[in-house]
Amino acid sequence: MISDQERTLARGLFEELFAELAAIGRDSDGATTRLAWSPEAAAAAAWFERTARRLGLRPETDRNGNLWAWLGEPGGGQRGGGPRAGGAAEPGRAATGAPGAIVTGSHLDSVPGGGSYDGALGVLSGLIAVHLIARRGPASAPLAVVSFADEEGGRFDTPTFGSRAMLGTLDLPAVLGRRDREGVTLREAIRDFGLDPDALGRDEERLQRIGALVELHIEQDTELSRRERPLALGTAILPHGRWRVELLGEAAHAGTTALAIRRDPTLALAAAITGARAAAEGERALATIGRLAVTPNATNAIAQQVTLWLDVRAPLAATVESVVEKTLAATRDAAAAAGVSVRVSRESFTDAVSFSPALRARVAAILARGGIEDVPMATGAGHDCGVLAQALPTAMLFVRSANGASHSPRELASVEDCLTGIGALTAVLAELADEATAAGLDTHERG
Amino acid sequence: MISDQERTLARGLFEELFAELAAIGRDSDGATTRLAWSPEAAAAAAWFERTARRLGLRPETDRNGNLWAWLGEPGGGQRGGGPRAGGAAEPGRAATGAPGAIVTGSHLDSVPGGGSYDGALGVLSGLIAVHLIARRGPASAPLAVVSFADEEGGRFDTPTFGSRAMLGTLDLPAVLGRRDREGVTLREAIRDFGLDPDALGRDEERLQRIGALVELHIEQDTELSRRERPLALGTAILPHGRWRVELLGEAAHAGTTALAIRRDPTLALAAAITGARAAAEGERALATIGRLAVTPNATNAIAQQVTLWLDVRAPLAATVESVVEKTLAATRDAAAAAGVSVRVSRESFTDAVSFSPALRARVAAILARGGIEDVPMATGAGHDCGVLAQALPTAMLFVRSANGASHSPRELASVEDCLTGIGALTAVLAELADEATAAGLDTHERG
Repeated sequence: MISDQERTLARGLFEELFAELAAIGRDSDGATTRLAWSPEAAAAAAWFERTARRLGLRPETDRNGNLWAWLGEPGGGQRGGGPRAGGAAEPGRAATGAPGAIVTGSHLDSVPGGGSYDGALGVLSGLIAVHLIARRGPASAPLAVVSFADEEGGRFDTPTFGSRAMLGTLDLPAVLGRRDREGVTLREAIRDFGLDPDALGRDEERLQRIGALVELHIEQDTELSRRERPLALGTAILPHGRWRVELLGEAAHAGTTALAIRRDPTLALAAAITGARAAAEGERALATIGRLAVTPNATNAIAQQVTLWLDVRAPLAATVESVVEKTLAATRDAAAAAGVSVRVSRESFTDAVSFSPALRARVAAILARGGIEDVPMATGAGHDCGVLAQALPTAMLFVRSANGASHSPRELASVEDCLTGIGALTAVLAELADEATAAGLDTHERG
Repeated sequence: MISDQERTLARGLFEELFAELAAIGRDSDGATTRLAWSPEAAAAAAWFERTARRLGLRPETDRNGNLWAWLGEPGGGQRGGGPRAGGAAEPGRAATGAPGAIVTGSHLDSVPGGGSYDGALGVLSGLIAVHLIARRGPASAPLAVVSFADEEGGRFDTPTFGSRAMLGTLDLPAVLGRRDREGVTLREAIRDFGLDPDALGRDEERLQRIGALVELHIEQDTELSRRERPLALGTAILPHGRWRVELLGEAAHAGTTALAIRRDPTLALAAAITGARAAAEGERALATIGRLAVTPNATNAIAQQVTLWLDVRAPLAATVESVVEKTLAATRDAAAAAGVSVRVSRESFTDAVSFSPALRARVAAILARGGIEDVPMATGAGHDCGVLAQALPTAMLFVRSANGASHSPRELASVEDCLTGIGALTAVLAELADEATAAGLDTHERG
C-alpha cells in the first residue's frame, strides 16, 4: 500500500504527532478530556493548523467550526465563491465540474475522561496519508483532511455537531440555547471560541465540492483481535438515541423525614438502572445510564430531583424503542410508588445508517490489492461519516483495538496496526483521487 | 412568659430580621443556600454582627469561626485571659468564680437548597430574646447568643464543625485536607474566610465560661401539629452516621461495549439505593442516599466510578450498624456480579446523646409556669447542642413546623408559633440567669 521508505517516514511522524496531540487535555490520571469549544479544543485546533502547514497542507476553518487541511484547491476555489445554483453534481465531479475532493478525517474532541485514539487517530492518520500522497507529486484530485467539531457532544449533548451543522439537520435555535454544567450556553461557548453562531448551518457549496469521505477510526470492540485482522471496513451504524429523564421528588431532611412520607427520586433512579439493564439483556441491545445530576446533592437531604441520561443502541430502531419503553415503564412504576413525577425528553435519535455500497466495494478492492482482507463491521457508535452518508458517498476503516476499550484512558492500538491503517488509508485516498479524475465516483448516491 | 408589649416589639423585630436574613443566599427558586465559609456565610456573619450591635450586644468571633453576641462580660473577661488551669467549675459558676454565662443559639449555614428556618430561627430568636432581657435592666449573669460555624457540613461533610472544633473532638489534620466539589480544601476555605486554620481547636476557656446552652430549633417532623402543641423540649438525639461508598468500575463506550464485559458501577448503585430502603424499612430506621458523584458522567460513557453517601439514623446504635451492614451487603453482592469493587469509609458517627436531665427539668418547670405543657421530643437530626452535651448542661426547644418540611425550601413555622418560641426562650434564659447567680446551675454534668 505504501513503500518501506514511506512507512518509515510515517512511523516517525506518527510517533511524534501522536505524542504532541495526546498531551493536549491529558488529565493527571492519563485520561484525555478535550471537550468541544474549550481551551483544550482551541489548543487542538492550533495543533491541527500548525501540523497541516508543516505537512504542506493549507488549513481552513469552516463556518461550522470544522477544521480542514487541503492539498490542492477544492473545486471552484475556496474563496470568492458566491451562492451558486444547487442540484446534483455530475457523476464523479463536484458541482463545479472539477473533480470532487477526496476527504478523510475524524474529530479531535473527546468525552470527559476519554482516551487518546478515539477521533484523534483518524485525524492524525489522515494528515500523514495526505502528506505521503503530496510527496509523490501533484495529486489527481483535491484532497483534504477534516476534523469535525464536537463529535462527542460531551459538553452540550450535541454529538456529531459539526457534520450535522454542515448538513443543516441541527435545530440550531434549540441547540444554541442549551447550557453546559457551568450554565454557559452553546451560543456563548461558540462565540467565545471565535466563531459566529449566526453563521452556522448547511454548507451547500462545501458539500458539493466533496467527492467522497473516508473516516479512519480505532475499533471500539475486540472483534478484530478475535479474528486476528488489523483492519475492518464499516458497513453500517446501528440505530441509537439519547433520552433525558427527570425524576422530581421533594427535598427533605434525611434525619427526620419518615420513610412513608418521603418522595425520594433515587428510588426511581434505581428502577431505571436495573430496568434498562434487564431490557437491554432481553432485547440483545445496549442500554447505558452513565450520566446523572442530583439536586441538592447533599448527604443529609433527600434529593429534590435526579436527572438521568439513557443511551440505547440496537440493530433495529424498533428494538431501541422497545428498550426505552421497558426502561421507562419500570422507572414510572417505581416513581409512582415513591410519589415522584417523571419527565422524559428525547435528546437525539439516529436511525440505522448504511455506508455507500459502491464506495465500500471500491475501497474493498483497493485493500484487496494491498493484501488486506475485507472484514465487514457494523458499529453501535455514531460517527460524522454516518451523518454525512445521507449526502455523500462515505466509508469507514477501523483499526484493531488492543483491548476493546473505548471512551476510556485504556484505549489502545499498536503502532504497527496504526501504520497499517495509515498505509491502507494512503492507498485508498490516492486511488480514489485517480478514479475521481479518470472516470468519476458514483455520486448518484448524493442526497 | 413575656409581656404583651414585649411580644409586640418581638413581632416587629422578628418580621424585619427574618426577612433580612432570608434574603441572604436565597436561590431563584426560593431555596436557601448558605454553605459554610462561602460569600453567603460571610454575608450572614456580617448580618449577625450588625444586628447584635443594633440590639445592644457585643459581637465576637472565636477562633473556631463561631459567632457570639454578648450581654454582659463573660466570666474572667474576654480578652487577655491567658492559659489557665482546667478542672471542673464550681457548681453553678464558671471556672473563674463568676456566674456561668447562659448561652442560646444555633447556626446560620444551610444545606444546599435548604429552607429559611433551620438554624436561622434559633439564632434570630436568641438575639431577640437576649435583647428583651437587656431592656428589662442589668442581667443577673452574662448572656450570649451563638451562631455555630458549619453545622450542616454541606460543603466538606463536616457537620457540627464549630461545636466539635470548640470541644476539640475534630481530627483537624484529616478534616482540613478535605476538598469541596471545586477542589478547594477546608484549610483554604477557612483561610479565605479570614480565620487562621492553625488556631482551630479546643477552646477550654470558653467552655468553662458557659453555665448552660439552650438551642431553639424548628421542629423537623409533624408531631407537634398532630398533638396541637406549639413547643417541645428535646430529650435526646438519635444515633446517626454518614458513610462514603466508592464503587469502582471501568469507563467504556456506551455504544460498543457488550453488556457481558461491562464493569458498570451504576448497577451497584441501584442495589445500594434499594438495599438501604429495604433495610431501613425492616429496622424502623431512616436511611438516605442523597448525594452522588459520577465520573466521567458522560451520556455515552459507562461510568468509571460512582461515589454515594449513605446517611443512617435509628434509636439504637446497633440498629444503625445493622442497616449499614445490610445496605453494604446488597451493594457488595451487586458489585461482585458487575465486576465492580467497593471501598467504604465512615465519615462520621455520633452515638445517642441525652440532653441534661437536670437542666431539662428546670426548663420544663419554667415553661410550666408560663402555661406550656412539656412535650418531650427525641430527634434524628444532629445539633451543636447534642455535641456540647458531653461538656455542658444543654437543652433544646423545638418550635412547631407547619408541615414537617426540613432541609427544603418548604420549611415553615407560623409567626405566632415563632413568637411563642421567642417568649419561652426569653423566660428560660432570664430565669436560668437568675438561678445561676442565686444558687448556681448544676454543673456536675460538665464533661
